[in-house]
Amino acid sequence: MTFPWLVADVGGTNARFSLVTAEDGSGFQFEHTQTLPTAGYLRFEDCLQAYLAQLPAALSKSVCAGCIAMAGPVVGDQVSFTNLDWHLSRSALQQQLGWNQLCLLNDFAALACSMPHLADADMQPLLPGTVVPRAAKAIVGPGTGLGVAALVYTPVGWWPVPGEGGFTAYAPQSPRELAVAALLQPRMYLYTEALVSGGGLVLTYNSLAEIDGLAERASEAAEVVDLALQQQQPLALEALQMFCDSLGTAVGSAALLYGAKGGIYLGGGIVPRIADFLVRTGFEKRLRERGRQTAFMADIPVFLITHPYPAFLGAAAWLQQQLVNANG
Amino acid sequence: MTFPWLVADVGGTNARFSLVTAEDGSGFQFEHTQTLPTAGYLRFEDCLQAYLAQLPAALSKSVCAGCIAMAGPVVGDQVSFTNLDWHLSRSALQQQLGWNQLCLLNDFAALACSMPHLADADMQPLLPGTVVPRAAKAIVGPGTGLGVAALVYTPVGWWPVPGEGGFTAYAPQSPRELAVAALLQPRMYLYTEALVSGGGLVLTYNSLAEIDGLAERASEAAEVVDLALQQQQPLALEALQMFCDSLGTAVGSAALLYGAKGGIYLGGGIVPRIADFLVRTGFEKRLRERGRQTAFMADIPVFLITHPYPAFLGAAAWLQQQLVNANG
Repeated sequence: MTFPWLVADVGGTNARFSLVTAEDGSGFQFEHTQTLPTAGYLRFEDCLQAYLAQLPAALSKSVCAGCIAMAGPVVGDQVSFTNLDWHLSRSALQQQLGWNQLCLLNDFAALACSMPHLADADMQPLLPGTVVPRAAKAIVGPGTGLGVAALVYTPVGWWPVPGEGGFTAYAPQSPRELAVAALLQPRMYLYTEALVSGGGLVLTYNSLAEIDGLAERASEAAEVVDLALQQQQPLALEALQMFCDSLGTAVGSAALLYGAKGGIYLGGGIVPRIADFLVRTGFEKRLRERGRQTAFMADIPVFLITHPYPAFLGAAAWLQQQLVNANG
Repeated sequence: MTFPWLVADVGGTNARFSLVTAEDGSGFQFEHTQTLPTAGYLRFEDCLQAYLAQLPAALSKSVCAGCIAMAGPVVGDQVSFTNLDWHLSRSALQQQLGWNQLCLLNDFAALACSMPHLADADMQPLLPGTVVPRAAKAIVGPGTGLGVAALVYTPVGWWPVPGEGGFTAYAPQSPRELAVAALLQPRMYLYTEALVSGGGLVLTYNSLAEIDGLAERASEAAEVVDLALQQQQPLALEALQMFCDSLGTAVGSAALLYGAKGGIYLGGGIVPRIADFLVRTGFEKRLRERGRQTAFMADIPVFLITHPYPAFLGAAAWLQQQLVNANG
């Protein structure tokens, strides 16, 4: 195959770009990786051009294909970014760039596509279990939002099933979670991501404070994590515990819906910072204790993705698959 | 292809069998359809033999392939029936029967597989919208349980994604739903199917009565439906309304998780009996009003499957696809 390809991972805050310059038996080669803040650009196209413009001109001109992973739903030829006022037409951009192939992919679909290409060293086991070969895998990651996707096996290999799983209705499972839901429901549609994300940890902390008549308020997830883990503040500890419990509920429900006997894989920015805490909370109990389906959930393993750029890897793998299909 | 094939749809109460005797341009030909009560048999194999034994001997011997859809998760070669103490090994049964091919399929995966083969007359539009071609479809059906599956498009055609979506955590979305959740959570793991199913309608009715200090209790879903629709009893009307609202929450959350811009398709035994009532409840609001994803949900159409045996159709279609793949 002809290289280089461009891969991108576009979130609400940052757009990350890289060039795939080669693929050998051990994997894809990534070069010229760079992060641009999305706030500086009116359109995705401008952000992409800014990345291309700072590459050596000959290299920039030689890019022949690309795959862009972004936080938002891809519907037909169009994509809307969930946390940005950007819209994109795949075919129009491909024509403008003159590339042979341009793919748009939901960012968690890209993460899902990376799964078969991750080495053991790219994942840390969090909870034990058995990966059933060719069974569906669930990928869930709390960060700015809550990304959810599945990867299912078909006769043409692994196939991603992306969605907007962060926007499923929140399922409170304890008296305190019910109290938070009762407080917030009159104000908003209470979706899972509203509580199980960086902003959701802050909302949980502030809601618990409001319910208990305390003056404490936080504005950043890092602040609540610090109050909990370093300062052992009881309110922050409870909020972080509730975050972990609710993540267990959400992750287990996604795994049930997908029939994910192929394993649960956690991505996103938050879990790596709290992994030791997470396994000491109600996370596992929430994940596994599912009435008549407890046996079904009992031996599903949970991994933390530790690879630094799994979305690049997934985007490259997806693009390769599309190029193979296009060329027969 | 060589016929006949056997198809079966095995639920908690009944096992339904049929023979596929031909396929022409307009679809599969089904003959010798019969329903056997599962309660009469210790093992699925005995139930199957009872069906085969009452066929003309020559016909029974000529069956060369089969596909069995059942309410339960298929994991590798094994299946466990969710509401029956039956276990099944696919390879052992195929060897015993001497067929060329035997497929096991989750019953809602079979329903999903029927979607591309249903005619317009086999579906009744419940809510308007636009089917995005090749986008994922969500199939949800409350009956004895709550079945959930997706159908996604791949280079080898439509592919089912089965799971145990009935066992996702219940997401209460109103003060009364929160009150029911608060009542029941100390007694059980409160999953969606526990409230959104035939038995779930009864549990909702009895829980509301308990909360309100009323003596009324019901034991059958049909009783609550009758009390609501015929007798206009306020408690039953509220229970049926809550059932419809919670179904809207569950269906919309599944559609979000699957990214189901290809439409929502309702099966199962209950919705056909209450379809007129359903569209006058909070069902649509719960389905569509999803915060930042309200636009994503706005134009997803909802259909009621009216075909009498969609699981047979889906099982036959799946088996045909497997036979085509096996024979290159």
